Amino acid sequence: MENLKKSTRSNREERNVQKIVVLRWGHRPQRDARLTTHVALVARALGASGFLLSDTVDEKIRKTVEQVARNWGGKFFFKRGTPWKSAVREWKAKGGIVVHLTVYGENIQTSNVLDRIKNLRKDVLVMVGSQKVPKDFFSKDVSDFNVSIGSQPHSECAALAIFLDRFFEGKELVKEFKKAKIKVVPQERGKKTIVEC
Amino acid sequence: MENLKKSTRSNREERNVQKIVVLRWGHRPQRDARLTTHVALVARALGASGFLLSDTVDEKIRKTVEQVARNWGGKFFFKRGTPWKSAVREWKAKGGIVVHLTVYGENIQTSNVLDRIKNLRKDVLVMVGSQKVPKDFFSKDVSDFNVSIGSQPHSECAALAIFLDRFFEGKELVKEFKKAKIKVVPQERGKKTIVEC
Repeated sequence: MENLKKSTRSNREERNVQKIVVLRWGHRPQRDARLTTHVALVARALGASGFLLSDTVDEKIRKTVEQVARNWGGKFFFKRGTPWKSAVREWKAKGGIVVHLTVYGENIQTSNVLDRIKNLRKDVLVMVGSQKVPKDFFSKDVSDFNVSIGSQPHSECAALAIFLDRFFEGKELVKEFKKAKIKVVPQERGKKTIVEC
Repeated sequence: MENLKKSTRSNREERNVQKIVVLRWGHRPQRDARLTTHVALVARALGASGFLLSDTVDEKIRKTVEQVARNWGGKFFFKRGTPWKSAVREWKAKGGIVVHLTVYGENIQTSNVLDRIKNLRKDVLVMVGSQKVPKDFFSKDVSDFNVSIGSQPHSECAALAIFLDRFFEGKELVKEFKKAKIKVVPQERGKKTIVEC
């Protein structure tokens, strides 16, 4: 009986965990290749469930990210080509909310925007641009929250990393990636990996 | 008298603030241009005092970063071309310590490595690579600490961002950048900037 209670509680907790998916908008295949790859790898490594490369198809990035996911384990999906408007519409229809990371938004440090996002207990689509985004991104039809990681220009890759680190409260850095072929063993000096092929 | 006490305390506190400088190693001008620019902007926006682009000269990146610093204010230096070995030697001779960000290092979340770094109260040179780094980086002669932002491959840009955010405990996102020509006013929707030319 006690076990049943525990299991019910744990299922409930599981259900309450908000899922995050990252949407990358404005990717230009030549210019943004490495940055978009980094953004996707950050999404995977720091706790997001998947990555949407909207409005464009870049096979090379898909291959790189899927290769990393195969070797390093865990569940992570990579989807490409969906127009951003459809992606947002579908996400909202399923009950999710949209967070747009932008230097113009509410400061994650000085406002309570992160608490408000978490208190909703809904799945989150995090939108990051790579060039000037359409004005629509700021409208109520699209973004439920506009969040800034400080008010200085820096990097969508960095902004996403800090957002995820704070959202998951550091727990994402301890997460086990199941079925990994490669694992790093943290240590003070040198490199130690366990490789299973 | 009370004021004098306060001022002495505040000077002392000022002195105790550890300064961070970021060293970027392994930059390849064509391939890494945008990523290195992002790393430098992250350093500036998230509280570092300066950026060393070691072993190479890339005028375009210097111009971009200095332009941002001129428009958005604050003090930030950009130095290029110094061989990494000399930079590390000089830094250590001045009493600073070296932190190497690497996926193989001690996990910032599960270990006490950040406390140990902060407790030393010394200035920190943070080294980030853009390709496979020389083995020497892991040796005692170079790194005082090898720190990982999780044990999954992602991005040096993201790793630096989370390191700085945790090191400065979020205070870097509130910092005022003096003599700024452009300032963003955070808000829930839309874009608001104050521009003084």
